[in-house]
Amino acid sequence: MATTFQLPIRIYWEDTDAGGIVFHANYLKFFERARTEWLRSLGLEQQTLRVQIGGLFVVSEMQLRYLAPARLDDALVVTAQLQAAGRASLTLLQEAFLRGSTPDASAQLLSAATVRIGWVDAQTMRPTRIPGPLLEKISPCFNPHP
Amino acid sequence: MATTFQLPIRIYWEDTDAGGIVFHANYLKFFERARTEWLRSLGLEQQTLRVQIGGLFVVSEMQLRYLAPARLDDALVVTAQLQAAGRASLTLLQEAFLRGSTPDASAQLLSAATVRIGWVDAQTMRPTRIPGPLLEKISPCFNPHP
Amino acid sequence: MATTFQLPIRIYWEDTDAGGIVFHANYLKFFERARTEWLRSLGLEQQTLRVQIGGLFVVSEMQLRYLAPARLDDALVVTAQLQAAGRASLTLLQEAFLRGSTPDASAQLLSAATVRIGWVDAQTMRPTRIPGPLLEKISPCFNPHP
Amino acid sequence: MATTFQLPIRIYWEDTDAGGIVFHANYLKFFERARTEWLRSLGLEQQTLRVQIGGLFVVSEMQLRYLAPARLDDALVVTAQLQAAGRASLTLLQEAFLRGSTPDASAQLLSAATVRIGWVDAQTMRPTRIPGPLLEKISPCFNPHP
Repeated sequence: MATTFQLPIRIYWEDTDAGGIVFHANYLKFFERARTEWLRSLGLEQQTLRVQIGGLFVVSEMQLRYLAPARLDDALVVTAQLQAAGRASLTLLQEAFLRGSTPDASAQLLSAATVRIGWVDAQTMRPTRIPGPLLEKISPCFNPHP
Repeated sequence: MATTFQLPIRIYWEDTDAGGIVFHANYLKFFERARTEWLRSLGLEQQTLRVQIGGLFVVSEMQLRYLAPARLDDALVVTAQLQAAGRASLTLLQEAFLRGSTPDASAQLLSAATVRIGWVDAQTMRPTRIPGPLLEKISPCFNPHP
Repeated sequence: MATTFQLPIRIYWEDTDAGGIVFHANYLKFFERARTEWLRSLGLEQQTLRVQIGGLFVVSEMQLRYLAPARLDDALVVTAQLQAAGRASLTLLQEAFLRGSTPDASAQLLSAATVRIGWVDAQTMRPTRIPGPLLEKISPCFNPHP
Repeated sequence: MATTFQLPIRIYWEDTDAGGIVFHANYLKFFERARTEWLRSLGLEQQTLRVQIGGLFVVSEMQLRYLAPARLDDALVVTAQLQAAGRASLTLLQEAFLRGSTPDASAQLLSAATVRIGWVDAQTMRPTRIPGPLLEKISPCFNPHP
């Protein structure tokens, strides 16, 4: 069972829109930040991967639900949890929670996404296999021959 | 059968990322622009709706597929097509195409989304019924008693 | 005397913030779009310049004034006017106007910027001379030996 | 002498552009985040100010210099330092540094800005006096009758 990576994110003016709430597209930025920090927590820096291995992850599919709005100054926790690892793509569950105002208050789910990211060649942007050593760091339990 | 609204969109530096392609979250901006211009083409300005009727549309669900990347200076056409109209929400199919470099060249599908937008009260942000006159402009064939 | 290039820009949800107005950083996007379209009007596509000449323009200095806010659905005109052309940089005056609601209404100045852009090598990002043929297209009256 | 507030900021995909560097407009977001956290460090939450006092700070002028680019995964420190406090506006010096890769490495200045923010009425967006108790928290040494 994969652990759930958590990243605290603060809501700034840049994130909001004239409706007084966080603009819906900006949750994709929050989810991306959480994926990036999750990879960094595994020792994987994407700029380094791109230069040294010549590949990068790109989003290929996403299912999104927006349940409640966030507002200026809100403190969020955004998660990333690996759901499945294939030879050329990974699937993650990602959620954005509003942190309760007291330590023991339960967090409120604001948005949830299932995100599929594929590994592509940095030059051609074509899908290609995730390099073995990279996949091992991401998914130690991955079994290519189940 | 609903017609397909089309909006031309040019790719600028702001839309791209260090991968050399359009950052995936920015397609949600393009889709939102197309929904806004589709509403405007029906005589509906959202700022006016908000002030006069006290409500606004917010995205509640989205399914996204990314098929091919767009790059700086690319000319896109982004569509909005009403798929279903309910009492409190609308569902649209939206697609982003890369315009062919010649008039008779076929356009390439870059990204597709099914988007559900709900009508909410501007103060409480709670879902509420789309006002009748508004729904009639959006969906002349809508039948509340099928 | 350089002519003034004009680009119409519509304000969308993505441009606004919870103050109900256009987020101040987004005017820099509008000014950039106007510079890009001004260059395109001179036959210069930046993606092509980067691939074929190996250089790009980057902003090196900017003085900004914000005079009045823009809001959702507003129709703006954003300008670009060459003020000075040096061997490695250009200086432009750029302004954002709110279009009057009637054709003969005068436009209101919302924001003004003096922008210095420098030509840099795409690999090293170091300042370098603007290639002669490029400078001639941008500034036909440029005199390197005044 | 005002102290310098510091905020660490990480560069994500969303911040970069196809030039491989941080898009110039995004430094304004970083500077805004630092101003917001500086105000928060003084006990001032802007959402609360807006609801309770009915006012907000907006940027009225900015002078910007871009000295060196930041890239994906870079770790920055962004500062905010009060330079002057008037009755209706504040002036801050803000700088963005690239953190050295070792603790004792000196940081590199990437961008610097002088920012003037004015206090406006949240309804009319017109400039108005900064409320006394607010100004006292921001600028304890402010002398209205020099």
